Amino acid sequence: MSDHWVSDELHNFYRISLRYQSVLLDEQTEFQHIRLFNTPFFGNVLLLDGVIQLTEVDNAAYHEMIAHIPMLAHPHPRRILIVGGGDGGALQQVLRHPSVEEVVVCELDRRVVEVCAEFFPAFGRPFDDSRAHLVIEDAFTYLQRVEATFDLIIADTTDPIGQAEKLFSAPFYALMRKALSPDGIIVTQCEQMYFDADLIKDMMDVARTLARCPAYYHTHVPTYPGGGIGFLYISDTPWQNGLGKPYPGPMTYLNPQIHQAAFALPEFLRRQLEAPAYDMRPVQEVYSGPA
Amino acid sequence: MSDHWVSDELHNFYRISLRYQSVLLDEQTEFQHIRLFNTPFFGNVLLLDGVIQLTEVDNAAYHEMIAHIPMLAHPHPRRILIVGGGDGGALQQVLRHPSVEEVVVCELDRRVVEVCAEFFPAFGRPFDDSRAHLVIEDAFTYLQRVEATFDLIIADTTDPIGQAEKLFSAPFYALMRKALSPDGIIVTQCEQMYFDADLIKDMMDVARTLARCPAYYHTHVPTYPGGGIGFLYISDTPWQNGLGKPYPGPMTYLNPQIHQAAFALPEFLRRQLEAPAYDMRPVQEVYSGPA
Repeated sequence: MSDHWVSDELHNFYRISLRYQSVLLDEQTEFQHIRLFNTPFFGNVLLLDGVIQLTEVDNAAYHEMIAHIPMLAHPHPRRILIVGGGDGGALQQVLRHPSVEEVVVCELDRRVVEVCAEFFPAFGRPFDDSRAHLVIEDAFTYLQRVEATFDLIIADTTDPIGQAEKLFSAPFYALMRKALSPDGIIVTQCEQMYFDADLIKDMMDVARTLARCPAYYHTHVPTYPGGGIGFLYISDTPWQNGLGKPYPGPMTYLNPQIHQAAFALPEFLRRQLEAPAYDMRPVQEVYSGPA
Repeated sequence: MSDHWVSDELHNFYRISLRYQSVLLDEQTEFQHIRLFNTPFFGNVLLLDGVIQLTEVDNAAYHEMIAHIPMLAHPHPRRILIVGGGDGGALQQVLRHPSVEEVVVCELDRRVVEVCAEFFPAFGRPFDDSRAHLVIEDAFTYLQRVEATFDLIIADTTDPIGQAEKLFSAPFYALMRKALSPDGIIVTQCEQMYFDADLIKDMMDVARTLARCPAYYHTHVPTYPGGGIGFLYISDTPWQNGLGKPYPGPMTYLNPQIHQAAFALPEFLRRQLEAPAYDMRPVQEVYSGPA
């Protein structure tokens, strides 16, 4: 076997390396350094600026959880905005829901879309769907100029360094909130509970000023630092409204137990976030309907 | 900052590396290569034969879950056997329960005990407790000769390579079962759901021949490969009996939501294990008492 390894460079105290067979692409775009590798275990792997973004083998744990948790919680999601997400993985999952009329994907770098369409065929070319609209633009600028409102905004962003740093800020969260319909939901990629607890706490505090039912949930992705990543759920519609709803088809990662379990926070994080533990009584007893 | 990195060598397609400041110990014992490093983020880190065993920062997620999940499920655990576990972390957690009369720790390598007593002071020297009995012996041999029965056996072992390979086998599981009291519980360290699903399936099939309520559960440990590790729960006493029981004190990782959530298996693993999803109704409705 080859002895080539590519390393995630997000942290200076911890790193994951993946053995690869070949370099599929190595390109500096206007915005970032895109690299693609073929690996023996994880299939094709995308790195942006030295940080692992997704692999063919474990991306379902990320994309199903960032997309279906809010899609199931919302009573009738018609118009969705995906910030970032040029790979198409979240878009693919959102489009499975028949209520969807339009999905805007606001991606900064067109090359991410082109490259992922070529190297992640399992996403099924979701940008070809007539309900999908690709906008190549900085999301901050887009949200400042757009008048539209969305039922769901998914911030499927890179990490808060460089160009994406401003997407982890109170002003950007406020921009998203302004573009949200009354019972709408925002879900943001919000980092690793062991490594980024302070950032998560800061973002949770921002979320609390924006909506009545903020919550943090997480998923198990072995190729992300620490083996997991979390999401901030921001809405006046409780996430529990999604429990028990029918799925739009078979899932790889999500099931009803995982749906609830994703919101169980280890005690050290629950304390730091000052988050209430969720009620373990059955959904019907606790939540009789949309808030 | 220093630019020294130590890597976990368990897998040939994936590796975690931790930056370290200094080597605290590097010693070849009769049984294995013991290394200890001081790291800026995770505190002291123990490696055995090139595989990360524990760190000061995240070991609670492992030790609380391997110890308290079965301790809470059992109606009155008095006699406990820990296979391996020479670091003392699981022993410390078990000893917090006032029902405990005796804990035998059967560890192969005395140096693990000595080294961890020195470099993991937060474990509080649990071998000094009068209820703790250290047996330096191969666990296979110990269980073949011992007549005693235990209410709980915790197999807190290294990975199934080299000396520990025989501990992941039907004969060893049968030996543990033979040494178990009627409503006793076995919990074994049982690897990573993404990387070792075939092994987990094999061990689950063995567990099904030994007890009525086998189950797989998992915990989030960022310094283990894939960021998580799982446990096989083997008993005629359902794990759900532990839900709602009072804790022996404050926890770092465990809480009631995490307790239940640990048994939520991602759909791909649930399918492979042919495991039933747990009932999400409240504990009192589903389980009126010990089976």
